[in-house]
Amino acid sequence: MAYSDRGIGIAGAPPRVVGADADWSEFARSQRVKTQRVAEHDAIFYEGDPADRVYELIEGAVMLFKLLPDGRRQVVEVIAPEALFGVVGGKLYDCNAETLTPSVVRILDRRDLEASDKFQSHVAECLRRQIERLHDHAVLLGRKSAFERVATFLMRFVPSRGQAGCLGPQGDKDEQLIELTMTRQEIADYLGLTIETVSRVISDLKRRGLVAIEKQDRIRITDVCGICHLTGTH
Amino acid sequence: MAYSDRGIGIAGAPPRVVGADADWSEFARSQRVKTQRVAEHDAIFYEGDPADRVYELIEGAVMLFKLLPDGRRQVVEVIAPEALFGVVGGKLYDCNAETLTPSVVRILDRRDLEASDKFQSHVAECLRRQIERLHDHAVLLGRKSAFERVATFLMRFVPSRGQAGCLGPQGDKDEQLIELTMTRQEIADYLGLTIETVSRVISDLKRRGLVAIEKQDRIRITDVCGICHLTGTH
Repeated sequence: MAYSDRGIGIAGAPPRVVGADADWSEFARSQRVKTQRVAEHDAIFYEGDPADRVYELIEGAVMLFKLLPDGRRQVVEVIAPEALFGVVGGKLYDCNAETLTPSVVRILDRRDLEASDKFQSHVAECLRRQIERLHDHAVLLGRKSAFERVATFLMRFVPSRGQAGCLGPQGDKDEQLIELTMTRQEIADYLGLTIETVSRVISDLKRRGLVAIEKQDRIRITDVCGICHLTGTH
Repeated sequence: MAYSDRGIGIAGAPPRVVGADADWSEFARSQRVKTQRVAEHDAIFYEGDPADRVYELIEGAVMLFKLLPDGRRQVVEVIAPEALFGVVGGKLYDCNAETLTPSVVRILDRRDLEASDKFQSHVAECLRRQIERLHDHAVLLGRKSAFERVATFLMRFVPSRGQAGCLGPQGDKDEQLIELTMTRQEIADYLGLTIETVSRVISDLKRRGLVAIEKQDRIRITDVCGICHLTGTH
């Protein structure tokens, strides 16, 4: 893990207010909280490490994964900015955390966090949203086909579409350029698929005119509604 | 949902202290908290209902599940006593809750709960443990074989074994009688399998002398170590 010597909060722009929680914002700006840069694909913590820190992602992307003894890997969560991670019930981290892109994390002392009831409200709010995402992911892993899994993954990058109240395509083209920030193997390990299946599904979506591949990790969805209808959710 | 007229807390034994949290215990005993019996296979809430209540399971078992529009079902969690459920980030429940057995639940007003920072500590603690279980379940759904899934499910009922520091079989026989409390279809929907696969795997475990089926929902594990070694975790 590449530490920067200077906290981003001091060196850079004034720290962002995360959510509407003023207590949290004050805590996050306090002297006891460090902010650090982490390079791409660096480990932040390992499963089984003492869980004495909690992390808040400020910039970038982080994956949480677990390994089976024979090396099979399951990415259990992909963390987006403003989310907390490393919040566990026991004394040890229950999974590994690794950056997907260069990232900035805020490092919080677990004891400080747990000593204060008022910060627990913010933690509980983050955890509640996390649990809803984990429920959705269980449906994907347990019940969705390979096409539905990849389509659901692609729609993660178009949060304004596909939800209740979605207005559908606005204008002539229903396109969206997305940066995956994950390798095919990481996507496979997140979606419970093999790398071959992920590649085959993406090639098939391309053949059907639903996506165009601009680079390995940059995909243009050329028919957002078309991909959305493949998610199994409609 | 079958409501009892009298709160169990008043009619029955004095309420149990849940965890070591005295604040929580006091809150749970207060006049504003109702305790109710729910019959087997009754709905407690539906996905999309206003999430204005939080539930604590006192006795019994509850499953949380989500449905895809074509009827595919994924059981995302099986709730055991002392756990909270119905704790969501948004205004609506993100999944359905249904009892597996006759159950007793404590019904808490969400606003009361969220208004108090000190209760949020207890909620956050429950959610942290819930997230660890959801991570494990994602590994099961995403990466484990049918045999590993069923073996992992069976070992849920033998919590004293298979963890770090497990002492192995004590005595001559390494047996454990378990009550599944779930139908084959519910188990299949929890494990991301078909009912045929669940039945086939259980028959195969029986043929291999690892389990004996005493009733449809009562299984005697006749070789706990043997089942444990099939979980994929060792």
